[in-house]
Amino acid sequence: METKENAHLSYLKSCIGLQASEKALSPVSKWLNAKLLEAEEGYLKVEFVVKPEWLNPFGSFHGGMAAAFMDDLIGTTVYSLGLKVQYSTINLNLDYLSFALEGDVLWAECKIVRKGIAVINAEAFIYKRKKLLVKAASNLVNTGAKAY
Amino acid sequence: METKENAHLSYLKSCIGLQASEKALSPVSKWLNAKLLEAEEGYLKVEFVVKPEWLNPFGSFHGGMAAAFMDDLIGTTVYSLGLKVQYSTINLNLDYLSFALEGDVLWAECKIVRKGIAVINAEAFIYKRKKLLVKAASNLVNTGAKAY
Amino acid sequence: METKENAHLSYLKSCIGLQASEKALSPVSKWLNAKLLEAEEGYLKVEFVVKPEWLNPFGSFHGGMAAAFMDDLIGTTVYSLGLKVQYSTINLNLDYLSFALEGDVLWAECKIVRKGIAVINAEAFIYKRKKLLVKAASNLVNTGAKAY
Amino acid sequence: METKENAHLSYLKSCIGLQASEKALSPVSKWLNAKLLEAEEGYLKVEFVVKPEWLNPFGSFHGGMAAAFMDDLIGTTVYSLGLKVQYSTINLNLDYLSFALEGDVLWAECKIVRKGIAVINAEAFIYKRKKLLVKAASNLVNTGAKAY
Repeated sequence: METKENAHLSYLKSCIGLQASEKALSPVSKWLNAKLLEAEEGYLKVEFVVKPEWLNPFGSFHGGMAAAFMDDLIGTTVYSLGLKVQYSTINLNLDYLSFALEGDVLWAECKIVRKGIAVINAEAFIYKRKKLLVKAASNLVNTGAKAY
Repeated sequence: METKENAHLSYLKSCIGLQASEKALSPVSKWLNAKLLEAEEGYLKVEFVVKPEWLNPFGSFHGGMAAAFMDDLIGTTVYSLGLKVQYSTINLNLDYLSFALEGDVLWAECKIVRKGIAVINAEAFIYKRKKLLVKAASNLVNTGAKAY
Repeated sequence: METKENAHLSYLKSCIGLQASEKALSPVSKWLNAKLLEAEEGYLKVEFVVKPEWLNPFGSFHGGMAAAFMDDLIGTTVYSLGLKVQYSTINLNLDYLSFALEGDVLWAECKIVRKGIAVINAEAFIYKRKKLLVKAASNLVNTGAKAY
Repeated sequence: METKENAHLSYLKSCIGLQASEKALSPVSKWLNAKLLEAEEGYLKVEFVVKPEWLNPFGSFHGGMAAAFMDDLIGTTVYSLGLKVQYSTINLNLDYLSFALEGDVLWAECKIVRKGIAVINAEAFIYKRKKLLVKAASNLVNTGAKAY
């Protein structure tokens, strides 16, 4: 017998195929405007195109924008768990492995590594096709505040 | 006898008091639009106001935008060293200590911790008045490519 | 009027000038055997000598042993806060900046950056005289378990 | 046609089934004394038993010793690549997800994530059976020094 899907995940599933600008939860998500490709409890996959305004002075995808993407994706993946309390990010570690250029179509995924009551650990990755560009790890702590 | 100031630092000093949107080196810097307060070789201090489009779904300053700021500030501080080769970010670690809200005036600083030939290590901080909000550490590697 | 010193700190102060092998709280501390130089609430300073058994295959101080030192020092510094609950390490980030050799006398310090109820953030450093060798940052979470 | 196995890997393969105390490359490896289970180019798997001298004051496996293990394993995995130059660890990030007790049999593995000329990125994990206890990520930089 399958567990009933949580309401957060149902919402996210209803967004599959849409750009974040249409339905996203936060202004930052809207601005980053990734397209949601897959949504499971504790797993999300998105796609986005490198915009000219996200370049660094060397003309490649700005590491800070990649960080913004990773953090936003991790937060949304924690949301997919449908938890009753809010979790707040304690730390975010990023490793930069390769570059992307304007117009490149990138995809990213996030997985919950450990869903503890006090602490959630997540990892996220940005790829260009099969090439790994950015690797992230993050811990989030239970704030005790009620989620909505 | 004082060492002659490097050209990168001279340029940055000419930007003190300006918003990044006026003179910044990259589209991301322009968009983040911090005001430069101080510039020394290996040290920068900036100020910025939390915009509504940088909020997370809980209504506070998005950790991913803070990460984008930190990475951009670190890159510009490395630029202030006036080095002849380009350095590329290997990793960025962020610790989130406290929150900020829309309209808060924040300030940030970056210091070069170690200026090695192969690797540069930097740390950066975001504050609201005297309260530390975000702490970052980053390593950058010598790419061998000529800086301009 | 001064706050009464907590019992954990009093104990640590009674250990100043001693090697950890004489009085330390854990087998690992005893084995690492640093000498305690200073102890305040949320601040510790220790000294140790690089032993031959802590070298890496290149003959310099093993980064993993430095990590063990940092983690142990951070844990003891959290202990100096005299808190009523136990905190458990969530993450530890280490940056390696320079090397040490057998017989080098190193010193290390740890500072509590933020003493939150849910999360404590700490930073620690290993030096050879004035030269920074290792830089660490760590987050610890409130486990709810009673401290003793 | 298969590439000829590098000499470092051949050596490591000859150590499969042995404790590190018998053949390891460094005093720290010998002291940690893991048993090598698998060795491929860029991949190692080891097993070890939690000793009483590796406990923290709460009686569980000391995070600092876990860090020492991870760093040592990562270094040996880089060695398995058979490179002509030495790489030095720039940073090591550890996430602690669960605990182990004295006598627990743990296993660990390390994978090279990216084998760049300037920078190598590696990840490593400690498990108790199928339960992930510690997750590590590390970057190592080309020192230019000849490997032996």
